[in-house]
Amino acid sequence: MTVVLFDLAGADPDVRFSPYCWRTRFALAHKGIPVETVPWRFTDTPVIAFSGQGKVPVVRDEAKVVFDSWTIAEYLEDAYPGPTLFGSPTGRAHARFINAWVDSVLLGGIARLIVRDLLDIIDPKDQGYFRSSREERFGMSLEAVQADRDDRVVSFRALLMPIRLVLRRQDWLGGAAPSYADHIVAGTLMWPRCTSRFELLEDADPVAKWQQRMMEQYGGLGAQAKRV
Amino acid sequence: MTVVLFDLAGADPDVRFSPYCWRTRFALAHKGIPVETVPWRFTDTPVIAFSGQGKVPVVRDEAKVVFDSWTIAEYLEDAYPGPTLFGSPTGRAHARFINAWVDSVLLGGIARLIVRDLLDIIDPKDQGYFRSSREERFGMSLEAVQADRDDRVVSFRALLMPIRLVLRRQDWLGGAAPSYADHIVAGTLMWPRCTSRFELLEDADPVAKWQQRMMEQYGGLGAQAKRV
Repeated sequence: MTVVLFDLAGADPDVRFSPYCWRTRFALAHKGIPVETVPWRFTDTPVIAFSGQGKVPVVRDEAKVVFDSWTIAEYLEDAYPGPTLFGSPTGRAHARFINAWVDSVLLGGIARLIVRDLLDIIDPKDQGYFRSSREERFGMSLEAVQADRDDRVVSFRALLMPIRLVLRRQDWLGGAAPSYADHIVAGTLMWPRCTSRFELLEDADPVAKWQQRMMEQYGGLGAQAKRV
Repeated sequence: MTVVLFDLAGADPDVRFSPYCWRTRFALAHKGIPVETVPWRFTDTPVIAFSGQGKVPVVRDEAKVVFDSWTIAEYLEDAYPGPTLFGSPTGRAHARFINAWVDSVLLGGIARLIVRDLLDIIDPKDQGYFRSSREERFGMSLEAVQADRDDRVVSFRALLMPIRLVLRRQDWLGGAAPSYADHIVAGTLMWPRCTSRFELLEDADPVAKWQQRMMEQYGGLGAQAKRV
């Protein structure tokens, strides 16, 4: 059966850019599960009211409804055979740390580099909500948040050191093959990749080289994603 | 058979304070492997020359010699049955990220809070080496590094957010039971715990509560460790 994924889209429905929805896309592809994606915008909360909350990703798998990218990954691992996302309960527990690190360190760092660019690609009906909610969060205008990004990107790149250290010793965060840890980081990097022309990583960065390899996985799922 | 661990000690041979040696102590205890520790000081490099390098931890297991805390953990997991350190190859790969995060983020943060205190507890024969090597690394006197620690500790505590987020959802970094991920972090925190009276964590911090639980594991191995 095909799984339905409600997937954050821009004004252009082919631009999919949620760092959380992309984790789910990669996890579904890793498991070999056919998916039908439904473009969804920030203000389309009534469309996913059946899930009992208002954010994507939401997955509908026949009668089963699951939301929250981490919960979806656990659901897929437990409900589907095929290549593992976590390897073992301990591997799952350790992946939760990587998920927490990305959510508490990387996401905020990336947001400060591209948040004004996002305003240009989201659906016009979402722009009022997006500007007011994000400006309240940052306590300043979106233009001000992003103003010093050419300087700020240097310290952002330094945050990636743990990934670089791991990639010195293994090809993937998951070891010999990608795991959900790779999906977490690569999914998160799809957000700036699809929405902004700002160069987050230097070409020579081992993280950039790993990202390129991730883009080619699963039949080029990442590589084929539409970018602005 | 008993494994021999060359273990960094202070002027008081009962004060053991290496963040790397403690990872190995916890891993050995987790596996239930009897250990004989040999107190070792920074300048005792000839004593471990048999390992082909000059740093601890070094483990001698009959004819086998292994050094580097990560390599030792892999060796123990592969050579010994009993409770797993990693759960699976994927769990091991994910633990490497946690190891890299601790080494590149936490260790430097802790060093800046306690490095001058260390000078007071290490063996007098090590003090000249310690001061000159560390002052070269920091580019300033040990006293200057540590001078603003009451302010700096606030940002250090913020660095622990990924651990806090994980502990909201599971009791241990390893999930339902401690894993080598817990040994990495708890072992690292033994370093300030044993050498300094500076309060690294607030009592109400979930990380402090987890640390207390870790101290009681393995027959109270951490709790019984001598502190200055």
